[in-house]
Amino acid sequence: MTDGEHSPGPVPRKNGNGANVLNARRIGIDTQYEAVVFMRRDCPVCKSEGFTSQNRVRLTHGSQTVIATLFQTAPGFLDHGEVGLSEAAWRRLGMNNGGTVIVSHPRPLDSLSLLRGKVYGNPLEAHSVKVIIEDIVAGRYSDIHLSSFVTACSAQPLDHAEMVALTAAMTDAGDRLEWGTYPVVDKHCVGGLPGNRTTPIIVAVAAACGLTMPKTSSRAITSPAGTADTMETLAPVDLDITTMRQVVEREGGCIAWGGAVRLSPADDTLIRVERALDLDGEGQLVASVLSKKIAAGSSHVILDLPVGPTAKVRSQEAARVLSRNLIAVAHAFDIEARTIITDGRQPVGRGIGPALEARDVLAVLQGTADAPPDLRDRAVALAGHLLELGGAAAAGNGTGLAARTLDEGGAWRKFQAICEAQGGMRVPPRAGHFRPVLANRAGKVTAIDNRRLAKVAKLAGAPVAKAAGVEIHVQLGMTVTSGEPLYTVHAEAPGELAYSFDYVAANSDIIEMTEV
Amino acid sequence: MTDGEHSPGPVPRKNGNGANVLNARRIGIDTQYEAVVFMRRDCPVCKSEGFTSQNRVRLTHGSQTVIATLFQTAPGFLDHGEVGLSEAAWRRLGMNNGGTVIVSHPRPLDSLSLLRGKVYGNPLEAHSVKVIIEDIVAGRYSDIHLSSFVTACSAQPLDHAEMVALTAAMTDAGDRLEWGTYPVVDKHCVGGLPGNRTTPIIVAVAAACGLTMPKTSSRAITSPAGTADTMETLAPVDLDITTMRQVVEREGGCIAWGGAVRLSPADDTLIRVERALDLDGEGQLVASVLSKKIAAGSSHVILDLPVGPTAKVRSQEAARVLSRNLIAVAHAFDIEARTIITDGRQPVGRGIGPALEARDVLAVLQGTADAPPDLRDRAVALAGHLLELGGAAAAGNGTGLAARTLDEGGAWRKFQAICEAQGGMRVPPRAGHFRPVLANRAGKVTAIDNRRLAKVAKLAGAPVAKAAGVEIHVQLGMTVTSGEPLYTVHAEAPGELAYSFDYVAANSDIIEMTEV
Repeated sequence: MTDGEHSPGPVPRKNGNGANVLNARRIGIDTQYEAVVFMRRDCPVCKSEGFTSQNRVRLTHGSQTVIATLFQTAPGFLDHGEVGLSEAAWRRLGMNNGGTVIVSHPRPLDSLSLLRGKVYGNPLEAHSVKVIIEDIVAGRYSDIHLSSFVTACSAQPLDHAEMVALTAAMTDAGDRLEWGTYPVVDKHCVGGLPGNRTTPIIVAVAAACGLTMPKTSSRAITSPAGTADTMETLAPVDLDITTMRQVVEREGGCIAWGGAVRLSPADDTLIRVERALDLDGEGQLVASVLSKKIAAGSSHVILDLPVGPTAKVRSQEAARVLSRNLIAVAHAFDIEARTIITDGRQPVGRGIGPALEARDVLAVLQGTADAPPDLRDRAVALAGHLLELGGAAAAGNGTGLAARTLDEGGAWRKFQAICEAQGGMRVPPRAGHFRPVLANRAGKVTAIDNRRLAKVAKLAGAPVAKAAGVEIHVQLGMTVTSGEPLYTVHAEAPGELAYSFDYVAANSDIIEMTEV
Repeated sequence: MTDGEHSPGPVPRKNGNGANVLNARRIGIDTQYEAVVFMRRDCPVCKSEGFTSQNRVRLTHGSQTVIATLFQTAPGFLDHGEVGLSEAAWRRLGMNNGGTVIVSHPRPLDSLSLLRGKVYGNPLEAHSVKVIIEDIVAGRYSDIHLSSFVTACSAQPLDHAEMVALTAAMTDAGDRLEWGTYPVVDKHCVGGLPGNRTTPIIVAVAAACGLTMPKTSSRAITSPAGTADTMETLAPVDLDITTMRQVVEREGGCIAWGGAVRLSPADDTLIRVERALDLDGEGQLVASVLSKKIAAGSSHVILDLPVGPTAKVRSQEAARVLSRNLIAVAHAFDIEARTIITDGRQPVGRGIGPALEARDVLAVLQGTADAPPDLRDRAVALAGHLLELGGAAAAGNGTGLAARTLDEGGAWRKFQAICEAQGGMRVPPRAGHFRPVLANRAGKVTAIDNRRLAKVAKLAGAPVAKAAGVEIHVQLGMTVTSGEPLYTVHAEAPGELAYSFDYVAANSDIIEMTEV
């Protein structure tokens, strides 16, 4: 830019404190979570403050402040004295009917030196974690900083004290629910097993048996569907605290998206980065799981740890370590936790992807003839443990009570009532495009690669495309004939179907078979 | 978005291969290095391909391909069948007079699994590093991926084989110069010492003594000025290979910015991320330094390692480790390297910041009365080693020859000739705003914090603002009176001056004094 390129516009206003005040314009650019501010390249504020593109700048409107990424524009793009705001910046500043923003330098990020210490192998002090998480929740970390934190916590695994500190910091950074009752039960599956969607069934059983189970779930981290993604195809899950409380008071249970109630808000930010890296370190896993449970006011928690060569937890030994960490950190917060190590060698149920998994859940709850027995068995076993842990069944009687509650329709009626209370039951969508993957010869199924099958579902559009995913037609030990469908890929768009099939074509051994 | 929100526009064209072809519009948004594509929220391509904001998409124009970040826009922002391109996307696609782009899904980033292996402590194989660096140079890594790589290489320090592999991969990813002469000498300072701007002086001395020294320098990593930033205030440094060759053939030496000739192009990408994190791991440091030397065709290299409590290298032991690594990796590429461990306890010369350091360089070359003696002494010592290593002086005679070449004006004449050959000598700019920091009592200077002083210079705008920085008036051991200026902060903008003074006010002990 040369000085002669433009005639300088009117100098933006300064307020009484000498701050730069500019008119905000909503320009309809969606940058998702990221606050972006657009400023004219020739804006006098850029010149006087030394701002250039990709700088992080501080925007203030009333009592709201965000740190935004700056993109500079050609002069014609905005009027003089004006900034453009992305949808996220507009929303987080609470602009509503527009107005002005103050643009300034952000304060230096002092917590970066604490993060660097962790990178170099120094343990994170409780205070350090607290400051880092506060900066993350306030949106002061760029993607570069977030990724460094996530990577450092995987490269230099967190010890017990660090896990407790991270769990506490993540809990304290958000809201905290209290239910005025005891016990408050909860359940979590440490992911990695496609289709393992027991939660909606367990909540229905527990609530039908009189327990209080206000379930908050996450969206997918590295999987094609989280419980919140699946449940959203059956009922609204974006519940605020008031609505959640009403649902739980009326029905004893709910299945809500945790993020909508600001429980452990750092978690969703970290999850986005973990997803991009496909990294999910043990310490962050423990803190992610337990901070949500603590914030949700749980007192008794069942943790399902599926183990298999292609599940998130690969060995019995790894499961034992994770189990010890989860129980020890839960104990530090006065939560009684029981871990159940389950079979994670193959997907559960038939569907992988939000709507396809929801159909399996409905079949089990309704007790239809085609209900996947493996999903039902797992749900009954876990619900049985939970009924015992929560005091609704004597030791040894949990499984029987859970099965009866399903068989006699109590769980299905309770589930429908919960969906109605959450805003109305929905019918899961069906994909407009699907295509089967056929066995190229006869054989017996000896292994199923959960990770690559999940990848097929993700490439087909899950979890963003709710109807997308994979429907599996075989299980370990099953004999198939040549030309028989092994699984069917569902997609909402032909481009995504084609995209996933490029991957399928290059991975013909996702389902391994021996000759019979 | 509801289906009723808009009337669907005309379907974008498909080419013969079924690819999505859209008209490209240059919309004048500067996002620096980052390629950004703007697409209408209701664009049928987004629907059919499943694209949403913040997705990474592949853009192709002729033979050029870039991976861009997608931002979706309100319908009125672009015409139907049109995409908006940021300046970086427009430039990297070579759009020139406009035209169409093909929009598609990027291929899955297979190298991420190699990166994850490193995060978890597996050594990087040579092939893995090669693939990762190729993906980085092709722009396939987002900031999240880049940051994870940089962090992993600091958290899991690279061993010798990994350093050699990274150096080779970074060298191979760019251009390679050959000079048709031997020896080709070079010099590098492993940063961290503000104001240590010996390079322009050494090049002038070496070239004046008949050696070939085609110097390529980087811009600042975590410091307020790199040699390229400083040199740019004295002459153009963005030289293409042809120009660089002409300068070297005519004058025996040059001082160019390495990035402009695509020597080790991954380096600048990594440097940007390292700068945001203020992380500069040993392995990446070695690879960054040596890949540029190898690519530049050097055969004999002097490496200056300043050591001090607040320099980049903090202890003699750390310097010895780094020295061993540098010499061993250089040896693997047939380069003769000599490391010189120097005093890094305080800044060198008076200026910190591009233009302020350039003024010190000029004073030494011109032999003016106020030339900083410490800068001159260091330059003479290093140049002496280089003259011996390169065979221009017998062992023990290098320092004497270097001093005479300065004293008799040969170096100053050579420097002017090099600047002219690079495009014409410039006068370094002076800052419009400056303010001294005064001693609040009398005392003797016992310590100077290089890092915090560098931070003051950076907060004042260096290196982007060329005239910005710090001018130091004291040295270790000097006695000052109360109210005497310790250093002066220079800035191009009042906002930046105020910003750095907020930090100065909170850090009154940057220059430590004892009572006398």
